[in-house]
Amino acid sequence: MTVLVVGSVALDSVETPFGRADDVLGGSATFFAASASLLTPVQVVGVVGSDYPMDRLEPLVKRGVDLAGLEQADGESFRWRGRYRHDLNSAETLETSLGVFSHFRPKIPEQFRSAPFVFLGNIDPRLQLDVLEQMNSPRLVKAAHWIMEHGPRHVIIKKGEHGAFMFSPSTVFYAPAYPLEDVFDPTGAGDAFAGGFIGYLSRTGDLSAPNLKRAVVYGSAMGSFAVERFSIARFLEIGPTDIARRVRDFHRLVSFDQDLLP
Amino acid sequence: MTVLVVGSVALDSVETPFGRADDVLGGSATFFAASASLLTPVQVVGVVGSDYPMDRLEPLVKRGVDLAGLEQADGESFRWRGRYRHDLNSAETLETSLGVFSHFRPKIPEQFRSAPFVFLGNIDPRLQLDVLEQMNSPRLVKAAHWIMEHGPRHVIIKKGEHGAFMFSPSTVFYAPAYPLEDVFDPTGAGDAFAGGFIGYLSRTGDLSAPNLKRAVVYGSAMGSFAVERFSIARFLEIGPTDIARRVRDFHRLVSFDQDLLP
Repeated sequence: MTVLVVGSVALDSVETPFGRADDVLGGSATFFAASASLLTPVQVVGVVGSDYPMDRLEPLVKRGVDLAGLEQADGESFRWRGRYRHDLNSAETLETSLGVFSHFRPKIPEQFRSAPFVFLGNIDPRLQLDVLEQMNSPRLVKAAHWIMEHGPRHVIIKKGEHGAFMFSPSTVFYAPAYPLEDVFDPTGAGDAFAGGFIGYLSRTGDLSAPNLKRAVVYGSAMGSFAVERFSIARFLEIGPTDIARRVRDFHRLVSFDQDLLP
Repeated sequence: MTVLVVGSVALDSVETPFGRADDVLGGSATFFAASASLLTPVQVVGVVGSDYPMDRLEPLVKRGVDLAGLEQADGESFRWRGRYRHDLNSAETLETSLGVFSHFRPKIPEQFRSAPFVFLGNIDPRLQLDVLEQMNSPRLVKAAHWIMEHGPRHVIIKKGEHGAFMFSPSTVFYAPAYPLEDVFDPTGAGDAFAGGFIGYLSRTGDLSAPNLKRAVVYGSAMGSFAVERFSIARFLEIGPTDIARRVRDFHRLVSFDQDLLP
């Protein structure tokens, strides 16, 4: 199945205790797409300025990311400049320049309107609703209405380096963050988590409880890759084997044999 | 097998956002013993003042805690007064009065000197060494020397509400903190964790890698009980069924079926 992501496509300038990067690929939709496209086809809706280095998105296109919904508008691209100090949990924003993103009105291309999975990135909730109205999957719109009426069934609380909880009607599931020796740049980890989570659900088309748990683990795995390099660099290096290995590592990290007390 | 604990036996006065308690049972050895005695026999070495309400320790004695090494000295008991604000992760110490604990020189009773497991609570490292010298288990003393020469083989890093890691020579294991809806008073959670961890190892006498993982989970389970009430109150209510249920809950919380990507 296919995932549609609507969100920012930006240029980030990041300083961490380990180095700095200027005008590298960033934005919610970019991190999501880089992560999810390792698992499933991805369609992107967003806007960039006339200054955006479109050629740098080529590796994503080669991997099946459809940019037909990425509009290039006159003006400057969304730029974010931030810094992480030794506490890598919180970014300090030094500068935000919305550019063409400030007038972003998502237009979902006809051929994107049937995507069964939609990730609504960092856009105004009114625009999020607007996106849902444009989708022609009745199942999805019904689901959206159900959510708006009843509240969500599954809630995921991401806690950065402290892992992620999924609360479901009858169960709680927890996946730790992978204990990396070196966290290089936390930017985008949350969107990469979403890309792994939704990408895995989209790939398997299975929304059962055990599969939702696995999806959380795939999300954590993809989040752990995101932070190993600046920008989306790590996602351009890895493949199915690396992902499978990290999921196995997660399994080893938390699994224990229950026994009754002797 | 038996566990020996050497540490503080105190009276705590605690304020949390949910209430306050005055002069309740506290101290590292007390929390450890209350927790571990649910799993294995415990021997306590410590000191209290002439003002200590010894009768309140009766429930622990009934459960197999041997207080033959708990000296009652002339003077005041160790008292700690602290406060937790909304961030329940860090205690603010309002007052510490060491009393007779300031001259504590642990004397290990003859019949305690063969305990195969020893928990050295919050006492001066010189006193900790002194305790080890008094033990007549050659295995233990050899182990202690080995540790001092080579550094520990297994390192547990407890992160409070963010769970606990165990780093072993070839593996990393992680147990989350149990997601309680109400954390009432975090005092003693770390010692209760140690009580569950060492208590389980003592009960099973099994130091294999899979059993060490289980022991971490028992530690986390006992830590999660500690915070549900003031002082050691929760440990006086629960029994094997409650413990088994919480360990099962931990298993459910983190376990997922691995699969290869379809």
